[in-house]
Order: sequence, then structure tokens, then C-alpha cells
Amino acid sequence: MTRYVRIEVNGVEYYARVEGHGFHLLTGAPWAGGREVGAVVGNGRLLAPVVPGKVIAVASNYRDHAAEMGKPVPKAPRIFFKPPSAIIGPGMPIEIPPGTTHVDHEVELGVVIAARCRRAYAEDALEYVFGYTICNDVTARDFQKEDGLFARAKGFDTFLPVGPHVATGLNPTHLALGCDVNRKVRQQGNTEDMVTSVAELIAYISQIMTLEPGDLILTGTPAGVGPIIAGDRVTVTVEGVGAMTNPVVDRSDR
Amino acid sequence: MTRYVRIEVNGVEYYARVEGHGFHLLTGAPWAGGREVGAVVGNGRLLAPVVPGKVIAVASNYRDHAAEMGKPVPKAPRIFFKPPSAIIGPGMPIEIPPGTTHVDHEVELGVVIAARCRRAYAEDALEYVFGYTICNDVTARDFQKEDGLFARAKGFDTFLPVGPHVATGLNPTHLALGCDVNRKVRQQGNTEDMVTSVAELIAYISQIMTLEPGDLILTGTPAGVGPIIAGDRVTVTVEGVGAMTNPVVDRSDR
Repeated sequence: MTRYVRIEVNGVEYYARVEGHGFHLLTGAPWAGGREVGAVVGNGRLLAPVVPGKVIAVASNYRDHAAEMGKPVPKAPRIFFKPPSAIIGPGMPIEIPPGTTHVDHEVELGVVIAARCRRAYAEDALEYVFGYTICNDVTARDFQKEDGLFARAKGFDTFLPVGPHVATGLNPTHLALGCDVNRKVRQQGNTEDMVTSVAELIAYISQIMTLEPGDLILTGTPAGVGPIIAGDRVTVTVEGVGAMTNPVVDRSDR
Repeated sequence: MTRYVRIEVNGVEYYARVEGHGFHLLTGAPWAGGREVGAVVGNGRLLAPVVPGKVIAVASNYRDHAAEMGKPVPKAPRIFFKPPSAIIGPGMPIEIPPGTTHVDHEVELGVVIAARCRRAYAEDALEYVFGYTICNDVTARDFQKEDGLFARAKGFDTFLPVGPHVATGLNPTHLALGCDVNRKVRQQGNTEDMVTSVAELIAYISQIMTLEPGDLILTGTPAGVGPIIAGDRVTVTVEGVGAMTNPVVDRSDR
């Protein structure tokens, strides 16, 4: 397994490979041909490890979560988009916007695409995966119900923590994932309970739209979603990737 | 009024300012500081004039279209995203994917953002506009009804023709817009019938998410949407911008 991060060092952003306590700097994103230049730095501020051109997500992809939402398990994947502008890195604050009274955490396995992918077969689809990361699909549940559509409810700035790194070489079919709020367990699941597997999702999505290197797929959340409020600390974990913690604050509007 | 295009000349893509029959090449997108280099070319293949980081659209933003869809006029804008991968340029074919039996055209005024925009006031919002273009928000109506969500129905590759250029200096509050299929009129509307104006839309969206230079906003379609099939030629027009025609073909799957 290899781990890749994006870090800020003296105001400059780099992709890097993590080895022990060192960050081996790259000339660019590893899924876009970034190469190691021989420079190693000992520390830097972690950023979201990927800057996707698009973020595709899937609704109700774990049976137990569909049940807690009172929804049937969909016959086919129901996809939606989150905007790249929603992404924040590890440790950065999730900002609760004015007007909502119910913002939920949703831990999800994130899939980072390695190569341009059109109309993949499920059997080959994992060949298009560069690696895996942890995502928190933060959702204003009240806005989601008001709109029917998800773009506003899931599209606010800071509503997509991603990190702390992208890990290669994992088997996505059996990974534990979970979410703690203030060190109390909220979600505990396993990717083996997905309705549509990672490979099938890539096949489904790539029948619709061309996936590009660095595109990010959110694969759904298990049961246990629940509200977060200012002052909370939310930790999301995926087995083999690690853990990412973000504080929650109220957005300070002008 | 100034018109900007993106063109391919000898396999290289350029942004350019149009003057008479000449394309004045730029060093980059005009909304990202692209400057003229003094080179003028006489022809090139027109591409979509903008490569947005994100595309935000709004449902039921003309009263007559809401009525024909059997929907109430929404109390607040209902936004959704189209993926940048759906964009094609003038003249490029709209591909009907397998499985759908009902694909509709939807002419829309497209707004290209000039500068980073967060939480704008409606009074100032038009200052963040670089210019306007013509969009066709192609939609698989049957998939839209099946999913409830719009991402698949509106997200297929080729489902977002944009062009032929971006025009500056227009007043977006009174522009005729329309759509012909095979030279027969399908849609005829005017932006004065929008439920939420361009300025109010920018204010609304920028309360949710940060808009970046080059981001594209689709502002809704007037009544008259209707099906297109392979062999059709679809022309969408916006007063002051011009016209864009795309042929329709069946997608040839592997």
C-alpha cells in the first residue's frame, strides 16, 4: 500500500508520497503523471488529497441506511453530484450555514479515478481506480427534504471533508468504515453491505459520463447518520486508509 | 459588446476575441487573465467557449415551463448540477444513449462567472458576470422521472451544448431566447419571464457555494420543451448572443 497526500509547505502546494515521517514531493498529481523529484520534507499542512474535476455520489447505497431514512433500496443506483468547491481537508472546520437546523455527518469510502474511463465493464472497472480515501458527505437534511434535489443540501462550502490521504492497493469489497462524534460512535459499517459495489458503480457511472483522472466517487453511507452542531468534533474512518477529524463551527456571515 | 470563443487551430486550443472575420488569440481564458498576443487567425474549429469548474442549473425558472411540466412555481430556486464532462461545442453531435425513449431540448441563457464570488448581494451580483452564452440543457425525461434526481438524466456526455461564443455587455433581464428543431419553432421565450432573475440566482447560489471564474450558470428554460431524435438538427438562440446548431445522433455503443 502506498499513501499519497497533498500538502502545503511554505505557502506552496505539493502532492507527495508518504514514507515513514517523510513526504516525497511530486511534480503533480500521481494520477496525472506526477513524478518524484527527490525532495523530501518532514512536515507540511495536510490539504484534501485530491482536487477532482467532478464528484459523483450515490444515494441509499447501504441497506441499513436506506431503512433508517425510510426509503426502499433503489432498484438502480441513484446518483448525484457534489461541487468540488465543497471540499476541505483534514482538520479544517465544517461550517454550519444559517437557516438549517439539521446537518448530518455521512462517512463514505471515496474512490479516486486513475485514468479516463468510458463505459467500463464491472469486471474491469477496478483497473480505473487509483486509490481510496475517506469522505464525509455532510448534508443539511432539512434542505434536502425541502428541495427534493440534493445540490443545495449537500453543496455548501466545507460540506465535503476529504482525506487524510489516498491509499492504493486496497480491496474495496470488505472495508470497515465508521464515524465518531466527540469520541462517541455514531456509524459502524462495512463496504461489504453496499447495494451496488465499487466496481458496479464505476461501470454504471461510466455508461453515463466520462470519468477523468482525479475524479472522485462517493460510494454511500451506512446507517447511523446523525446531527452535528458547532463545537462538535467529527472523526470519519475507513479501514486501511485511516482517520480524519474535522471540527464543526457556525458559519460567520457578514 | 465583445465576443469570445475557444477555437482549435492545427490541433491546438486557444481562447480568442472575435473581430470581424478574425480571431485574436489570447494567452488563456479572458476571465482568468488571458491577454491578446497580437496573433490573428482567419479560421479555426469552434469549441465550447468555456471550460467551467462547475455547472449550476435551476429547475422550473420560467412560469410557463413549470406549468407545462405540471409543477408549481417553486418558492425558492431549486438548483442542480450538470457535470463539465457533458459539454460539447457548436456543431458537435448530441448523442442519444441507449435505454431512454424521451430526450428533450431545453434552451437556456448561460452565465459565465468573471471573478470569485461568495455571498454576493443581488444588487452587486451582475458585477461577477463576465458574459453570456447559449446552453442546451439536454434531458432524458424518462430517466429524470425514474430517478427523482437529475444527475443521470442531465449528465450524459454530449448533453450540454454550449456556444457559439461568450458575449459581454448584455442586459440579461430582457433577452429573447428560443429553440428550433429542423427549422420548426419549438421554444420562444424571454428572460423577462424568469421566476428568479440572473442577479438573484447568483446571490442565491453564492450563499451556498463559492463561484469561481469560468463557472457556468444555466438559468432555466421557457415553455415548449420537446423530444429530439437521431437525425434532428437543434438550433438554440439567445438574443444578442446568436445561434448554435447541433445534430442529434444515436450513441454507437461498443
